[in-house]
Amino acid sequence: MTKSDPSGARLGRLNTAHGAVDTPVFIPVGTAATVKGLPQAALEALGVQILLANTYHLYLRPGHELIRRMGGLHRFMSWKNAILTDSGGYQVFSLADLRKMTDEGVRFRSHLDGSEHLLTPEKAAEIQLALGSDIAMVLDECIETPAPRAAAEEALRRTTEWARRSRRYCQEYASRNGEIAQLQFGIVQGATFADLRRESAQQLVDLHFAGYAVGGLAVGEPHELTCEMTSEVTALLPNDRPRYLMGVGKPEDLADYVSRGIDMMDCVLPTRAARHGCLYTSQGRVLIRNVRYAEDPRPIDENCTCEVCARYSRAYLRHLYLAGELLSAILNTHHNVRFYAELMRRIREAIAAGKLVQFAGALREQLVGAPA
Amino acid sequence: MTKSDPSGARLGRLNTAHGAVDTPVFIPVGTAATVKGLPQAALEALGVQILLANTYHLYLRPGHELIRRMGGLHRFMSWKNAILTDSGGYQVFSLADLRKMTDEGVRFRSHLDGSEHLLTPEKAAEIQLALGSDIAMVLDECIETPAPRAAAEEALRRTTEWARRSRRYCQEYASRNGEIAQLQFGIVQGATFADLRRESAQQLVDLHFAGYAVGGLAVGEPHELTCEMTSEVTALLPNDRPRYLMGVGKPEDLADYVSRGIDMMDCVLPTRAARHGCLYTSQGRVLIRNVRYAEDPRPIDENCTCEVCARYSRAYLRHLYLAGELLSAILNTHHNVRFYAELMRRIREAIAAGKLVQFAGALREQLVGAPA
Repeated sequence: MTKSDPSGARLGRLNTAHGAVDTPVFIPVGTAATVKGLPQAALEALGVQILLANTYHLYLRPGHELIRRMGGLHRFMSWKNAILTDSGGYQVFSLADLRKMTDEGVRFRSHLDGSEHLLTPEKAAEIQLALGSDIAMVLDECIETPAPRAAAEEALRRTTEWARRSRRYCQEYASRNGEIAQLQFGIVQGATFADLRRESAQQLVDLHFAGYAVGGLAVGEPHELTCEMTSEVTALLPNDRPRYLMGVGKPEDLADYVSRGIDMMDCVLPTRAARHGCLYTSQGRVLIRNVRYAEDPRPIDENCTCEVCARYSRAYLRHLYLAGELLSAILNTHHNVRFYAELMRRIREAIAAGKLVQFAGALREQLVGAPA
Repeated sequence: MTKSDPSGARLGRLNTAHGAVDTPVFIPVGTAATVKGLPQAALEALGVQILLANTYHLYLRPGHELIRRMGGLHRFMSWKNAILTDSGGYQVFSLADLRKMTDEGVRFRSHLDGSEHLLTPEKAAEIQLALGSDIAMVLDECIETPAPRAAAEEALRRTTEWARRSRRYCQEYASRNGEIAQLQFGIVQGATFADLRRESAQQLVDLHFAGYAVGGLAVGEPHELTCEMTSEVTALLPNDRPRYLMGVGKPEDLADYVSRGIDMMDCVLPTRAARHGCLYTSQGRVLIRNVRYAEDPRPIDENCTCEVCARYSRAYLRHLYLAGELLSAILNTHHNVRFYAELMRRIREAIAAGKLVQFAGALREQLVGAPA
């Protein structure tokens, strides 16, 4: 960390085998080895230093062994900057009826062809080593929220045990094959119980991961509770390791998480919302299908300097959306990814100036019109 | 025309209100004011000097009056180069059960909402003036092929009468509103009857259009017959006016049409085929879903210098296609549009060297493995 803000926010640089990542960073999601609608050159032009790819999807299609044979995920998708892969667990847990959990791992059926698979902590690590991502996540147990305490305790126990097995797998792999450039991150669970969150954090810290994620939050609980749980965890994590809050978030919430000591975040929101015609602007959301934009010659956001705002009107973007044109998803995604990237740049600036808390408050007011 | 080849091919430059177009040219289709999958900046980078937009689609959505109020189609879609609009007739005729033809025009129901509309020669001209395209096509009657002679004669009579009404509409419009920058093209019909084709061409030439199109060909008849009919027509057209063969064609056929005196062509083939995973290469078609490409590290076309071939493997493009990813359509379309643009550049080079016939033969052999 090169600088920290009075709030607890940190300015840093995360070094990976594929370049440095300036933190705090928002990581665009490229589920199937592509950020839906954005060519790699566009991501580079937007200054994106790290992408997330989904292990579950790539394991099923085209298969991690194919990607390994093609020289790894970076070469396969022609992306020279950093890549973070999740463990596949979150997607598998989302399959609901299609999966069964034991201490060994999760048995599940593919959503593509119904074939049966077993995902274990070791398997999740193996797949990610085959993909060759720069940052790999351990398999953890995600539970539904709100969770009864007993379920949260059980998931915590399993998460720690799986983290231990994941760590061991990579250490043994390294002793057989030489040092691994991949950074392995543990994932703190514990639902919304502060003591369980602390217990989980402590147990993971003892395993000496390269970084630590906070999982199972922002899944429906109030924003303030997400922030509280985050603070409980980050307070216990070593200062010299990156902290990653998984699956967040809305633009107005990002600075809050950063002020709780978070360095990395990811979410499908900017890309998925774009495809549904929801555009983020300095004045809040624009739902581009709205008839009020039918003849609006203005750009999406008059304060935005992205290529889309420099060239296209709301009227044209509305037309593309209503006509179901590919260009709608392309342009909307470009704008939203750029909006998030620019927001993170301003957050880093605010930390450097020691003014993140003021920035976070002003941001929320600007985006949603009122304090949280 | 600046140069003509022994074959009858012509090298030229078509001046429009939005820049010059080097001919012979292949015009990418941008049905709803967008070439599906390609941002305008990408089209510019590919050197595209002219696009086609469909009057039928834009009339129904977002509506030509809206586009007029937004400053015309160029401003609406942010495209500074030339635009050609069709008359809407071809789409309306394709509606089959949804339309009814009289000498007045075509009554049809929208494929979007079932609303009833009447397209007349005057209305087609009015819509295209509202769109502000650089080149407007007159409404003609397209008939199914093979057509009985009586039907072809009747369609020819109506086509000429409609061409006359279209011409008159624009002349009267100009006398009320001042000179029109838009170039109006007549469309030669006559099915596959050489004498009717000649009769149609002569009748249109007498109306003094800015350019002449050949319609109703390449709709199922043998390629050689398409070429013969084309030659019958171009032989009668004034040398100083552009000739446009509508709705063609396959890469291996383009040079043949040019050798018959054609200057302009358009077709959805490169863009539509791209979305279906059919890629054009210097060695013929590549169907990217084929399992033989699953681990193929080579570019689509080793002789291609486009951005897609410079960066991505067949293996990755196959993965994107099978996963139904947006990037599949984006990259495939980029490659195919570039392939057509490069092919036209080489055709123009061959004309300049006086070697188009040899080029056309070699091209066909290279692309489909045998002479036609």
